[in-house]
Amino acid sequence: MRYKVTLAYDGSNYHGWQTQRKGNSIEEKIEEALYRIHHREVRIVGSGRTDARVHAKGQVFHFDSPLHLEAASMRTALNVQLSCDIRVQHVELVDAHFHARFDACAKRYDFYLSSDVDNPFLRSYMAFERAKLDVDKMREAACFFIGEHDFTSFTSAKIDDRKDRIRHITRLDIQQTNQCTHFILEGNSFLRYMVRMIVQTLIMVGKNKLKVDEVKTMLLAKNKHACQYKADPQGLYLTSVTYKKTRDDKD
Amino acid sequence: MRYKVTLAYDGSNYHGWQTQRKGNSIEEKIEEALYRIHHREVRIVGSGRTDARVHAKGQVFHFDSPLHLEAASMRTALNVQLSCDIRVQHVELVDAHFHARFDACAKRYDFYLSSDVDNPFLRSYMAFERAKLDVDKMREAACFFIGEHDFTSFTSAKIDDRKDRIRHITRLDIQQTNQCTHFILEGNSFLRYMVRMIVQTLIMVGKNKLKVDEVKTMLLAKNKHACQYKADPQGLYLTSVTYKKTRDDKD
Repeated sequence: MRYKVTLAYDGSNYHGWQTQRKGNSIEEKIEEALYRIHHREVRIVGSGRTDARVHAKGQVFHFDSPLHLEAASMRTALNVQLSCDIRVQHVELVDAHFHARFDACAKRYDFYLSSDVDNPFLRSYMAFERAKLDVDKMREAACFFIGEHDFTSFTSAKIDDRKDRIRHITRLDIQQTNQCTHFILEGNSFLRYMVRMIVQTLIMVGKNKLKVDEVKTMLLAKNKHACQYKADPQGLYLTSVTYKKTRDDKD
Repeated sequence: MRYKVTLAYDGSNYHGWQTQRKGNSIEEKIEEALYRIHHREVRIVGSGRTDARVHAKGQVFHFDSPLHLEAASMRTALNVQLSCDIRVQHVELVDAHFHARFDACAKRYDFYLSSDVDNPFLRSYMAFERAKLDVDKMREAACFFIGEHDFTSFTSAKIDDRKDRIRHITRLDIQQTNQCTHFILEGNSFLRYMVRMIVQTLIMVGKNKLKVDEVKTMLLAKNKHACQYKADPQGLYLTSVTYKKTRDDKD
C-alpha cells in the first residue's frame, strides 16, 4: 500500500531534507521511524529537498508499506516514533502510481523577514534586516519574476548543465506588517536556492543597493554568476505542495 | 556607575538563570560578555532566578561598571557580545543604591498552554495538553490564590524552613483563545516553582482530575508535600519586573 504523508518540521536542528554523509537529515529521521514501525528498511520519496535550517509546514513524501495500517494509525505510529520537531499532519492512502516528486504540480514557499533584531524568540524562525525597506520598489522588481523564465541566474552554481532551468512563477507577493516583511512565492517548481536568491535580491532592491532594472538584467543574463545574493535559510518555509486531483496514468 | 538592564531570553538551551557547576546559565553568559567588555570580572545581580528552559521577556539585573559608557552604548556592547538567544532590550543608569532583587516590588509571569500538539514550531515555547479544559472551573479555583497567602504547599520541598513563604498574588487571569490557554500571574514575589505548581494544579482542575475545593484544601494545608503538580518549564515566561518609582533610602 502506498501512503502519501504531509508533514511539518522545524528545520533548525537538521542538515536539511536529504540524507547525507554527515547525518541528521529529516529524510533519515523519517526512515528511522519507519524502520522501527516495519522492522525493516523503508525508503521514502519526498516532493523535493529543503536546505539546512529551512522549515516546512506542508512537505509531502510517499512510501510503500506491506502493513495494511489505516491512514490515521500510520499517522499516530509515525508521530510516536518521530521527535517533536518533526510532526506528521496528514496521511492518506493513494494509488500505487502516485509519486510525491513527479506528480507535484505546484509549490508554495513563504519567507519571513523581521526588523525586530533583538527578539530572541524569532532567531530560528525568521531572517533579520535592520534597514527600512522600500517595499514599493521591491514589488516593482518582483514583477520581473512572474511568469515563465529561465532562472539560471537564480540558482546554485553547482547545477547540472544538462538540466532545464525554465520555471513558472505564478505568484510573488510581498506583504508588509508591523515589523515583518512576508514574501509569498508560488510556482510549478523551484530550482535549488531559487527562492532564497530571489528574496535576497528583492531585499537588496528594498535597501536601495540594487536598482529595479538591474534585477531584470540579472534575470535575462541567464548566467549562474549573475546573482550573488542568498537570504538566510531560517526565514524560509515550504508551505504546501499541490498535486493533480486525478493522475492520468498513460504509462 | 550602576546600570539597570532589562533583557529577553529564549531559555531553551540554558540550565536556567543561575550560574551552576554544570555551566551554561544565562547569568554566566552575561558575566562572560561583561568580562569581554571590561577585561576583568564583573558580577551581576538578577531580580530572581528562572529555571532551565523557562523564558524571559523582561528579566532585570544590575551591575557596576567603571567604564562611564552611555546607556545606549552599553546596550550595544552587550548585544554584540551575547548570543542571539539572549538580547538586551533596555539599559539605564541608576542610583548607586538601586538593587535588582531587593527593590523589585512586583513581577508578572505568563504561561502558555497549547492543544496544538502536532505543531513542531511551538515545542520549546509552550506547554502542551491534548485534553479539553473546563476553563470556568479553572477560573473558580484560581480565585483561591488571589491575595496574601502562605504558599508553602506550592513551592519546592527543598525550601529553607526558616524562610517566610507568605506571598501576595494580585492577578491570576486565564484567557482562552483558539488553541491556547494563557495564564497571567502578577504578585509581589514568587517562591521557587510556585507559578508552575499553581498552573499545573489549575490544569488538573480543568481536566476534572482535581475538584475546585481540593485546591483550597491544598493551599490551606501549608504543607510542602500537598501539591505534586508542576507544569512544563517551556510554557513559562518572566514578562516583567516592576520597581518602586523612587527608592526611599532610609538605611
